[in-house]
Amino acid sequence: MASKKSVPQKKSTLSIGAAVPHLPWQERPKGCADILWRYDSNPVITAGNVKNADAISNSAAIAYKGGFVGVFRVDDNTRLFSLHTGWSKDGLSWKIEQTPIKFKVGKNQPPVVKGYDPRVCKIGDRYYVSWCNDFHGPTIGIAWTKDFKTYTFIENAFVPFNRNGVLFPRKINGRYMMLNRPSDPGQTAFGDIFLSQSKDLVFWGEHKFVMGRRRGWEKIKIGPGPVPIETKEGWLLIYHGVFDSCNGFNYVMGAALLDLNEPWKVKYRSRRYLLAPKAPYELAGRVPNVVFPVAAIVDAATDRLAVYYGASDSVVGVAFGHVGEIIQWLKEQKDLD
Amino acid sequence: MASKKSVPQKKSTLSIGAAVPHLPWQERPKGCADILWRYDSNPVITAGNVKNADAISNSAAIAYKGGFVGVFRVDDNTRLFSLHTGWSKDGLSWKIEQTPIKFKVGKNQPPVVKGYDPRVCKIGDRYYVSWCNDFHGPTIGIAWTKDFKTYTFIENAFVPFNRNGVLFPRKINGRYMMLNRPSDPGQTAFGDIFLSQSKDLVFWGEHKFVMGRRRGWEKIKIGPGPVPIETKEGWLLIYHGVFDSCNGFNYVMGAALLDLNEPWKVKYRSRRYLLAPKAPYELAGRVPNVVFPVAAIVDAATDRLAVYYGASDSVVGVAFGHVGEIIQWLKEQKDLD
Amino acid sequence: MASKKSVPQKKSTLSIGAAVPHLPWQERPKGCADILWRYDSNPVITAGNVKNADAISNSAAIAYKGGFVGVFRVDDNTRLFSLHTGWSKDGLSWKIEQTPIKFKVGKNQPPVVKGYDPRVCKIGDRYYVSWCNDFHGPTIGIAWTKDFKTYTFIENAFVPFNRNGVLFPRKINGRYMMLNRPSDPGQTAFGDIFLSQSKDLVFWGEHKFVMGRRRGWEKIKIGPGPVPIETKEGWLLIYHGVFDSCNGFNYVMGAALLDLNEPWKVKYRSRRYLLAPKAPYELAGRVPNVVFPVAAIVDAATDRLAVYYGASDSVVGVAFGHVGEIIQWLKEQKDLD
Amino acid sequence: MASKKSVPQKKSTLSIGAAVPHLPWQERPKGCADILWRYDSNPVITAGNVKNADAISNSAAIAYKGGFVGVFRVDDNTRLFSLHTGWSKDGLSWKIEQTPIKFKVGKNQPPVVKGYDPRVCKIGDRYYVSWCNDFHGPTIGIAWTKDFKTYTFIENAFVPFNRNGVLFPRKINGRYMMLNRPSDPGQTAFGDIFLSQSKDLVFWGEHKFVMGRRRGWEKIKIGPGPVPIETKEGWLLIYHGVFDSCNGFNYVMGAALLDLNEPWKVKYRSRRYLLAPKAPYELAGRVPNVVFPVAAIVDAATDRLAVYYGASDSVVGVAFGHVGEIIQWLKEQKDLD
Amino acid sequence: MASKKSVPQKKSTLSIGAAVPHLPWQERPKGCADILWRYDSNPVITAGNVKNADAISNSAAIAYKGGFVGVFRVDDNTRLFSLHTGWSKDGLSWKIEQTPIKFKVGKNQPPVVKGYDPRVCKIGDRYYVSWCNDFHGPTIGIAWTKDFKTYTFIENAFVPFNRNGVLFPRKINGRYMMLNRPSDPGQTAFGDIFLSQSKDLVFWGEHKFVMGRRRGWEKIKIGPGPVPIETKEGWLLIYHGVFDSCNGFNYVMGAALLDLNEPWKVKYRSRRYLLAPKAPYELAGRVPNVVFPVAAIVDAATDRLAVYYGASDSVVGVAFGHVGEIIQWLKEQKDLD
Amino acid sequence: MASKKSVPQKKSTLSIGAAVPHLPWQERPKGCADILWRYDSNPVITAGNVKNADAISNSAAIAYKGGFVGVFRVDDNTRLFSLHTGWSKDGLSWKIEQTPIKFKVGKNQPPVVKGYDPRVCKIGDRYYVSWCNDFHGPTIGIAWTKDFKTYTFIENAFVPFNRNGVLFPRKINGRYMMLNRPSDPGQTAFGDIFLSQSKDLVFWGEHKFVMGRRRGWEKIKIGPGPVPIETKEGWLLIYHGVFDSCNGFNYVMGAALLDLNEPWKVKYRSRRYLLAPKAPYELAGRVPNVVFPVAAIVDAATDRLAVYYGASDSVVGVAFGHVGEIIQWLKEQKDLD
Repeated sequence: MASKKSVPQKKSTLSIGAAVPHLPWQERPKGCADILWRYDSNPVITAGNVKNADAISNSAAIAYKGGFVGVFRVDDNTRLFSLHTGWSKDGLSWKIEQTPIKFKVGKNQPPVVKGYDPRVCKIGDRYYVSWCNDFHGPTIGIAWTKDFKTYTFIENAFVPFNRNGVLFPRKINGRYMMLNRPSDPGQTAFGDIFLSQSKDLVFWGEHKFVMGRRRGWEKIKIGPGPVPIETKEGWLLIYHGVFDSCNGFNYVMGAALLDLNEPWKVKYRSRRYLLAPKAPYELAGRVPNVVFPVAAIVDAATDRLAVYYGASDSVVGVAFGHVGEIIQWLKEQKDLD
Repeated sequence: MASKKSVPQKKSTLSIGAAVPHLPWQERPKGCADILWRYDSNPVITAGNVKNADAISNSAAIAYKGGFVGVFRVDDNTRLFSLHTGWSKDGLSWKIEQTPIKFKVGKNQPPVVKGYDPRVCKIGDRYYVSWCNDFHGPTIGIAWTKDFKTYTFIENAFVPFNRNGVLFPRKINGRYMMLNRPSDPGQTAFGDIFLSQSKDLVFWGEHKFVMGRRRGWEKIKIGPGPVPIETKEGWLLIYHGVFDSCNGFNYVMGAALLDLNEPWKVKYRSRRYLLAPKAPYELAGRVPNVVFPVAAIVDAATDRLAVYYGASDSVVGVAFGHVGEIIQWLKEQKDLD
Repeated sequence: MASKKSVPQKKSTLSIGAAVPHLPWQERPKGCADILWRYDSNPVITAGNVKNADAISNSAAIAYKGGFVGVFRVDDNTRLFSLHTGWSKDGLSWKIEQTPIKFKVGKNQPPVVKGYDPRVCKIGDRYYVSWCNDFHGPTIGIAWTKDFKTYTFIENAFVPFNRNGVLFPRKINGRYMMLNRPSDPGQTAFGDIFLSQSKDLVFWGEHKFVMGRRRGWEKIKIGPGPVPIETKEGWLLIYHGVFDSCNGFNYVMGAALLDLNEPWKVKYRSRRYLLAPKAPYELAGRVPNVVFPVAAIVDAATDRLAVYYGASDSVVGVAFGHVGEIIQWLKEQKDLD
Repeated sequence: MASKKSVPQKKSTLSIGAAVPHLPWQERPKGCADILWRYDSNPVITAGNVKNADAISNSAAIAYKGGFVGVFRVDDNTRLFSLHTGWSKDGLSWKIEQTPIKFKVGKNQPPVVKGYDPRVCKIGDRYYVSWCNDFHGPTIGIAWTKDFKTYTFIENAFVPFNRNGVLFPRKINGRYMMLNRPSDPGQTAFGDIFLSQSKDLVFWGEHKFVMGRRRGWEKIKIGPGPVPIETKEGWLLIYHGVFDSCNGFNYVMGAALLDLNEPWKVKYRSRRYLLAPKAPYELAGRVPNVVFPVAAIVDAATDRLAVYYGASDSVVGVAFGHVGEIIQWLKEQKDLD
Repeated sequence: MASKKSVPQKKSTLSIGAAVPHLPWQERPKGCADILWRYDSNPVITAGNVKNADAISNSAAIAYKGGFVGVFRVDDNTRLFSLHTGWSKDGLSWKIEQTPIKFKVGKNQPPVVKGYDPRVCKIGDRYYVSWCNDFHGPTIGIAWTKDFKTYTFIENAFVPFNRNGVLFPRKINGRYMMLNRPSDPGQTAFGDIFLSQSKDLVFWGEHKFVMGRRRGWEKIKIGPGPVPIETKEGWLLIYHGVFDSCNGFNYVMGAALLDLNEPWKVKYRSRRYLLAPKAPYELAGRVPNVVFPVAAIVDAATDRLAVYYGASDSVVGVAFGHVGEIIQWLKEQKDLD
Repeated sequence: MASKKSVPQKKSTLSIGAAVPHLPWQERPKGCADILWRYDSNPVITAGNVKNADAISNSAAIAYKGGFVGVFRVDDNTRLFSLHTGWSKDGLSWKIEQTPIKFKVGKNQPPVVKGYDPRVCKIGDRYYVSWCNDFHGPTIGIAWTKDFKTYTFIENAFVPFNRNGVLFPRKINGRYMMLNRPSDPGQTAFGDIFLSQSKDLVFWGEHKFVMGRRRGWEKIKIGPGPVPIETKEGWLLIYHGVFDSCNGFNYVMGAALLDLNEPWKVKYRSRRYLLAPKAPYELAGRVPNVVFPVAAIVDAATDRLAVYYGASDSVVGVAFGHVGEIIQWLKEQKDLD
C-alpha cells in the first residue's frame, strides 16, 4: 500500500520544474541502501487492464491537470502492439482506454496505429509523444497532443533504423533536442546514444554523439529512458544498458548527468547500475530479466522521483528515489574505473 | 480439485464423435473471460511419475475402455528421451510405465526406442502413434497398436527432416491424411504446416500446403498440435506458434478450422492466441516460456474439451474449453488483420 | 576440337544399356593420369545460347533419336531461373529454346515454370524430369514427357525441403526408386543421400539411408549427380561433395558403386575426388569453385562416359572417362581410410 | 582505344542538361545486344595511380571546365581508405592527387579525412560531395567545394547508420533531396532506398520510402548509384543490387525511372540487371564479383552516357549507353513479374 | 535449518584424507532418492553479503583451521567480477571481505585483481587458487597463499583460451596435474576436459585428453568442477555439462571416477546427471537454468560430502551426498549407453 | 627464369647468420617500387609434384647441406593433408617425396601423420618441425630430425586450440621460445600473437603477449609466419594478417621487428602490408585471396631474402627482398597511425 503521509518538504532541492505533491510515493524501506527502491505493490499495471491484452509494459506517465495521464504500450493477444491513452488520479491505479491511439497523418491518409516504447514530453503547451514506429523498419515517430484525445503525427522525422527517441522538455539554444539510439531492423546487439537537433521538429541535423557502450552492465547497448530531468547541476538522464550471457540479454537501469547547455556533454555517468532485475516479475515473463525505464515524474518541491519501468516486457513497475541523492551517487562514482 | 458435477448436457453440439462423460473437467472460473482455462491443480504430471526421469512433458492422452491411456514423452536424467505408455481412470492421475515403448520393426532388426512429442490417433480399431523419430535426423515415425502393449513400426514413412506429424482420425476421400511440419536438423527457426496423403500409411504423396507463419505470436514457426477434432463445421485444429525475443522463443497455442473434405483449406484461423505461458510452471523450467499442445479429448455429447499440453518442456498441464465457443471465437476474428 | 575417330571398340564392357556411338568424346590427353578428363574446348554451353540469359549451368543431357536432347537450367538477367529444352546432334553444340518449359499441372491450374538443377531419366518410353521445384520452399518436382515438347507435372511428390532428386532408370523389385538429399530452405550446410521408393511415382515411402558426409572433400554435404549408370557390378553413382573454407564452399565430384538390387547398399565409395575445380571457368564465375555433375551419357558398347557438369553456376562443361576404369579406381580405394 | 569520332547528333534526346561533347565514348561493339557495354580498355584506373595505394575503386567523376574532375576512393596498403581529388582531360586517363582530401570542419577542430564511396553532385555553383563517413559508425557525410581544392564539411547531417547518400542535382519543390540507404555497422545483409528532404542541407526530415529489395539480382539489398540523371520522362536512377550465394555476395547494376516532381515515386524499374560481373577484373580481386556504379556523365545533346563503376573493390571501369535506350528498356520490362 | 546430529560414523569409507567432522550437513530427506540433495535453506550466500554486490555465485570453500575459508566470485553492481576471501565457522554462514583479493605479481607490476570461477586446492602447506583470468582473453590464472591474506601470482601459466583450471591435491608421479577446458574468447559452444602436467607449476606440457562431450545433458560442453576427491578407487571428479535448447544453455552436474595414477584415464562416468536446475533460485536469476559445482568438502571419516555450487550465476547453494554412494552409482551406470 | 648473376656483395649487412650464396634470387624488376617482389615464374610448386595431390601450398624450406630441404603441406585428392619431405638444389625446382612423414611417437604407439602449415627451424644440430596437429582439436605439434628421414615427436606440448607455432632459431636467456596464435576449433575469426617459453621444449609457460590485431589489413587476426630472422637490430618477423569483406577473408603479409633479448617487445611494426594477393594464382584457387608466408631463407652475407608462401591454399610462390630494406621500411612507418 502506497503512503503519501511521510513526505517532508526539503529545504533546498536540485530539481527545476513544477511541484507534483500528489506524486506516487513510498519511503525507502528500513535497512535498504538502494538508491532506487521498488514500490511494494508492484506491478502497478498488468494485462488485465485492457481486454484481449497479453501485456502492458514499457509505458510513459506524466502529471496532468492535478492527476496523471499516460501513453501505454499494450501488446494484445495477437502479440502485436499499439499505444493506448490511460488516466489516473494517484499514478498507481490506472484506467486504460480499450482502443488504441490513432495518430492523424495528412489528408486522405490512414492514421498511424502501431508502435511501442512511447515517451511523453511536455514542451510549451503541447505534449509530444515519441515512440518506435514502423516506417519500413523500426524508427522514431513523433506526434503531439494537447488533450490526449487527438494526436497529430509529424511526417517521418527519422529514417530507419532508430529507437528510443527521447525529447528534452524545452528548447536549448533555440533548438529542439532529441536523444536517440541508432539501431538495426532486428534485435540489435549494439547501440550508443546520440543527440539530434531541430528548429521545427520536422527537419533534423547537427547530430552529436553523447555516449557509448562500456564494459559491465552496459556492454551490449544503451538507450535513453525517461525524458531528461532538469536540475541545477545538469540534465539527469536515466537510461538502460544491456548485458548478455549464454542465456540472453539482461536489461538494467543506470543514470548520467548531462550538461545543461550542451547536453551532448556527459558530466557524470554511473559505473554502477541503478536497478537490475531481481523481483520475480522482472526475472520471469515474456522476456525474462528486463527492467526498462520509460518515464520519470519529479516533484520539484521535494526532489522526490517516481520512475515507471517495464518489467519482463509484461507489466509496469514503479520505483522511487531522490533526485539529489542520485546526483550525489553519480559524483561518488567519478573515479571508478 | 477437479469437479465433474456441473456438466450440463447441451442440447446441440458441434462435435462429432463419441461421448466421453468421464472427461476431466472444471468449469471456467468466475470472472475469467479466457476461451481456454487452466486446470487449477496443474501440473498434472511431473517427473516424479517415473524413476530416473528428468521431465515428463509433451504427451498424448486418449479415451480408452472407459478410462484413459496415453503415450508420454519422458526425458530421463541422461537428458535423452523415450516414449512410455501410461494409464489413468480420470485423465488427471496417471500411472506411467517405468520402461520405454519398444516399437517392433522387421525381423532381425532392433526395435525403435527413442523419440519425442508423440500423438495418438484412433483410426478404425487401431491406435496410431506418430512422433519425432531419429532416422538419420529428426523425422516422423509412425506405429500402431491395439492394446498399448505391442506397437508395430511402419518402415520409415518420411525422409528427414520433419516434425509434428499429426494424423486425421479417419480416411478422407479414401486417403489417410497427416499434417506435418517440414523442418531442419537443428532448432528450426522456420516452419509451416503441410498435409500429406497416403492410401496405405506406407507410401505418401500429393502433399498440400495448409498454412504458414504470420506476424505476431506465430511469426517464427507453427506446427499442428492434437489430432484434429471433427465438428459439423470442419476440423478444429489446435496448433502451436512461436514468437521470438532477444531472450529466446515463446511457444503459444492457437487454433484453426479446416475444411471437412479438403482439410488443406483453412476456413478460419485465430489471430489471437488461445493460451500463452503465464503460469509459473510455464514461465520457468528446462525451456522457459513454453506451452505445447499435444492432445485434445472431446466429449461430443457436451462439446467439452480437455487439452493436454507440455509446459516448459518439464511437466504436463491440462486446460479446458468448449468446442463450440472456440469455433465461435474463430469466426469473430475473421476480420482481424 | 572434339575428335571421335580414335574410339576403339572394347571387347568386354561393364556398362549395361544402349550403344551411343555418337557420344561426344576425346581421348585422355598424353601425360594425364586423371580418371576423368575435361573436354579441351570447355565450356560447351554459355549464357550466349539464350537471349537475356545470365548463365546456363547445371543441366541434363540425354541421348535421343540419334542425337541428344536436354533440360537446361537457365538463369536469366533477373537472376531467376527456369528450365529450357535444348537439342544437339553431337552433344557439344546445342540449340536451346528461348522460352522456358511449362510443366502442365491439373485443370484450371497454372503451369509450373520455375526450377533448377534438372535431371532427365528414361524409364520405359517416358522421360522423367526431376528438379528443384519451389513448393513453399525448395523440394523435388517430377514431370514426364515423351517428346520434350509437352511435360506433365506429378502433383507435389515431396514435401519441402529436398533437393537433387535422381531417379533410377528402371524399376527395381517392382518399385521406382529415387535418390534425394533432404535439406533446408537456405544454403544448407549439411546433407546426406537417401533413397525413396514408390509403386506409382505419386506416393513415396520406405525411405532408406544410403550414405552420409565424410571428412575431406565431402565434409559439409553430398548429393547425387547424374542418373545412376547400370553396370554388371552395380549402379555407378557420380555425386557431388562439398568442402568449406573461410572463403566459402568448394563443390567437387566423386563416385560410388551401389548394389544392383538393393541400391541403398554402398559397395564402394571414392575416398578421392573424381574432379575438383581447377579450370578458370570453374574457379571464377557467379559462384566460384564449383563443379556440379548433372548428367552422364554412356556408350555401353565401349564403356565410354561423358559427364555434363555445371561450372561456377555459370556454364556447362563436359568431362570424359571409362566406366570400367572408374569402377576399378573405386575398388583400389577400398582400404583407404 | 577509345574513339570519339562516330557520335551522331541525335535529333531529339530525352536528357536534360549540359552538352558534354568530350564525353569518353565507344560505340556498342558489333553483335552486342547489351544495353550497357564496357570500355574495351578497362580498367581505366588502377592502384598504380597513387603511391602506396592498394586499390582505387568506387569513385565519382564529373565534367568540369572543359575536362573532368573526380573524387576517388583510394585504399592504401594499410587497407584503410581516404578520398583523393583527380583530374582528367578525356575522362579515361587520370592524374590523381597523392594526398587525401581534408574536409574542413569548424574552428579548432581536426579535418575529416576518412571515407569511401563518394558521389559528386553539382547544385548551383557548388559541387557537393557525399560519401560514407565514420561518425561513430558508418553514415553519410556531406561537404561542398567550388574548386576541388578546398572542401567544407557540413556538420553531421545524418545519424549512423547510413550509406550511399546521393543528392539530386537541383532543388525540387524548394527542397534539397537525397537518396540514401539506411544500414547497420557491419556488412549489412539488408537495405532499401529512402529519400530525405532538407531546406538547407543541414537539417533533414520528411523522409520517404522509395523502393525495396526484390527477388532475383537485388534480393539482399539495393542502394542508389550515380547522381540521378534528369530526363523529360523522369529521373533516371542507376543503382546496385546484391544477390547472395554460398560463396558470398554478387554486386550488380540496375536502373529505375523516378517521378520528376515526387522522386520517391517509381515509374519504372528494371527486372533485368544492366550489368553484372563478367569481366576478369570484376570476377576476381579484393572482393570478387562486384560492379558498383558511382558516377554517370551524360552528354545531353546526344543522350550518350558514360558510367563509372568500381570493380571487385579493386579498380575503376567505364561502361557506355544511351539514356533513351535505357528508358525504353525499362518500359519494356513493365509487365515482367 | 542444518542439523549435524544425525551423522553416524561409517565403519569403512572410500575417501582418503582428513576428517572434517564440522562439515555442513543434512541427512537425505525422507522419500528422496536423489544421490545428491539440496540444503533446505539454500541459497547459503547471496549478494547481500558484500556491499555493492550484484551476485555472489561460483565460489570455492575449503576446510581451514577448524573452520572454513573460501575464495568467492563477487559480481558487483557494475557487472564486473573479482575474487574475495570469505570466512565461516560452519560452512553455511559466511563473512566475506568487502575488498577484492589483489594477487601479487612481480616487482613494479600492478597486482592482478579481476577474475571469476575460482577453485582452491591445498597441496602441501600451500593453498593454490586457480581461476579464469584475463590475459588478453580468458585463460587460467594460478596463485598461492598460506594465510588467505597474501596471494602470489604465478606468471601466465596458460595461453588463452582456457577455463576451469582444477588442480589435483597432490603431485602424481612427481608432477603437478591440472584439469582444464580449452575454450575460446566468447561463450564457447564446445569444450572437452584435458589434463596438463608440470614439474614446477610454471612450465606445463605433456597434455592429455581426459574426456569429451557426449549426447544428453553434456552435449555442448563439459568442464571440471571441484578439486578431485581422492578415494581408494580413484579420483572422484564432479564436473558440469551443458545442454542447449532454443532458449539457451542448461548447466548440469555429473561425476566421473579417474584412475589414481594415470588420472587421464576414465574408469567410470555418469550417464545420468547428479543434479540439474530445479529449485527456483536455479531456474531464474541473472543466467537462468544454471547449477555450477565449484568446491567439494569431504569428511573422510564418514564419506560425507558437501558440494558448493553457483546457481543461476546469482547465488551459492550447497548439496550433500556420500562419496561411496556416488561411486556405487557410477558403477551401476557402466552399461548404460 | 631465375637469374643468380646479378647479386652484388653488400659491404655491410644487418643479417646475422650463415651465408647462403645459392639462395634462389631475382633482382627487383625495373620500375617496381615494392619492398617484396614476386619470382617471375611463380608458382614454383604445384600439385603436380606429388601423385594424387590436390594442392601443395603452405610449406617450409630451409638451406641444408649446400642445397635445400623442406617440409611441405600436401593436400591430396581426399582433401585431407599431410606433411612431406622435399629436396631441391636451387630452391626453385623441388622433388617431393610421395609418402607422408611419419612422426615417431613413443613405443607401441602409432605415428602422427596428419597436419598442415609446417615450419622448420634449426636449433643447434637439430631441425625442429612445428605444425598444426590434431590433438582433439587443432594445436601445435613439435618434432625434430637431423636427417629429414626420421622425425621424433615431442609429446603433446600444447593444449588445443593453437596454430602457427614458430620457434626462434636459438635459445634466448636460456629458454626456447615459440611464437603462437591461440585460436578455436573452427575457422577462427580472431587471433593475436603470443610467445611461450620452455627450458626443454616439453613443458611450456611464462607466456607473453606479443601483439594483437589492428585495423586495416590485419583487423580479423594475425599469425607469425617464417622463423624470425636474426639481425643486428632485432628479430625480423614476417607475419600474416587477415582482412574480411562480404566475400570472405583476404590473407596478407606484413612484418615487425622484435627486441633481440625480450622478443615479446615489438620495436617496429608495419602499418602497410608487405604483399597482398594480386597475382592470378593468389586471387583464384581453392581458397581465393590468400598469401600465407611460411619460410624465409636469408643469405646473411648479402642480406638477400627469399620468402616462401602459400597462394590460395593451392600452390607455393616465392618472393624476394633485402633484409635491410625491410627494416628501413618498418622504421619509416613509425609515425603512421
